[in-house]
Amino acid sequence: MDYASGVARWEPDARGRLDQAAMDLYRERGFAETTVAEIAARAGLTERTFFRYFADKREVLFWGAQLLERFILERIAEAPAKITPLQVVASALAATGAIFEERRERARVRQALIVAHAELREREVMKLAALTATIAEALRTRGVREPTASLTAEAGMAVFKVGFERWLGDTGKKDFAHHIRAALGELRAITSGRKSRSSRP
Amino acid sequence: MDYASGVARWEPDARGRLDQAAMDLYRERGFAETTVAEIAARAGLTERTFFRYFADKREVLFWGAQLLERFILERIAEAPAKITPLQVVASALAATGAIFEERRERARVRQALIVAHAELREREVMKLAALTATIAEALRTRGVREPTASLTAEAGMAVFKVGFERWLGDTGKKDFAHHIRAALGELRAITSGRKSRSSRP
Repeated sequence: MDYASGVARWEPDARGRLDQAAMDLYRERGFAETTVAEIAARAGLTERTFFRYFADKREVLFWGAQLLERFILERIAEAPAKITPLQVVASALAATGAIFEERRERARVRQALIVAHAELREREVMKLAALTATIAEALRTRGVREPTASLTAEAGMAVFKVGFERWLGDTGKKDFAHHIRAALGELRAITSGRKSRSSRP
Repeated sequence: MDYASGVARWEPDARGRLDQAAMDLYRERGFAETTVAEIAARAGLTERTFFRYFADKREVLFWGAQLLERFILERIAEAPAKITPLQVVASALAATGAIFEERRERARVRQALIVAHAELREREVMKLAALTATIAEALRTRGVREPTASLTAEAGMAVFKVGFERWLGDTGKKDFAHHIRAALGELRAITSGRKSRSSRP
């Protein structure tokens, strides 16, 4: 393989290959047991190349957060003025299906790793809290006042977390946006005091 | 003072005195600049006594979390069967005013410290995430199904965070429970699509 020869200085899709190699190794051997050297070798790249893209092996699981945040902020910024703040946020979150839909299996492997490792759970919780704060800020930029902006961001992220979990557990029939909309409907039922379908005994 | 003589082995309200001394020093000198030795000296106690109650100086700001959690779980367990899950959670959270109401000034000092220090913010976020998970579990114990239990816990904590902030910023006229109820009303308005008072331009 040319790209492993050490001659080529430009590595096509090095990030994607490192990501794929890391996820495969984490699944096969476990997160704690995998070294950066092994990830680089599996991807046919050098450790040096690995560190050009990721600070450490943990970062492989979190580099998408920035992409996700930018995507959501763009959707919020371009949302029509006359829909409610919660609709703005829910639509932006449902649109992230464009990022997640093709990666359900990767997302499942990632989620299992995060659930199993306290240090990863902590990082995930902090990333989601940062995203919540960024969404609230984007709403304030649109003229939404406090406490509406913060509450809407929190409510939106609650919908995102629950919708995301349901999508992960789905055997493949319903898409990401469906699960976000379903979680939003559930939240509306909860706050209106109606019994939703899933809460009935 | 008798209790500083070193003779008495039982120190009346040592935790409370250490807490008060620490909060005073954090406010006067800053969190980073205060040592455990100084806290103990201000409280008229030994460092050894400090470490009997707190793992480190950070823990002074978080020891109440366990108390808070127990209090909330008791309120949820004893809530009447016929109110909705969100009412169960909101009532339990509003009832924590019994803990916070007399400590608004301490809560303000604590909040300012947390906002100013990344390590404290991180710890606070993790504690609140743990409390959210515990509330969801308590709802499931009451027979509430998923995803209702998780969404209700998330929605309840969103109300708690916003209500708590508003209470901190209140000049003293409205009590804790009022701010929790107001935040709940705001969340209902947000999810129902009505414009609430505070979000009107």
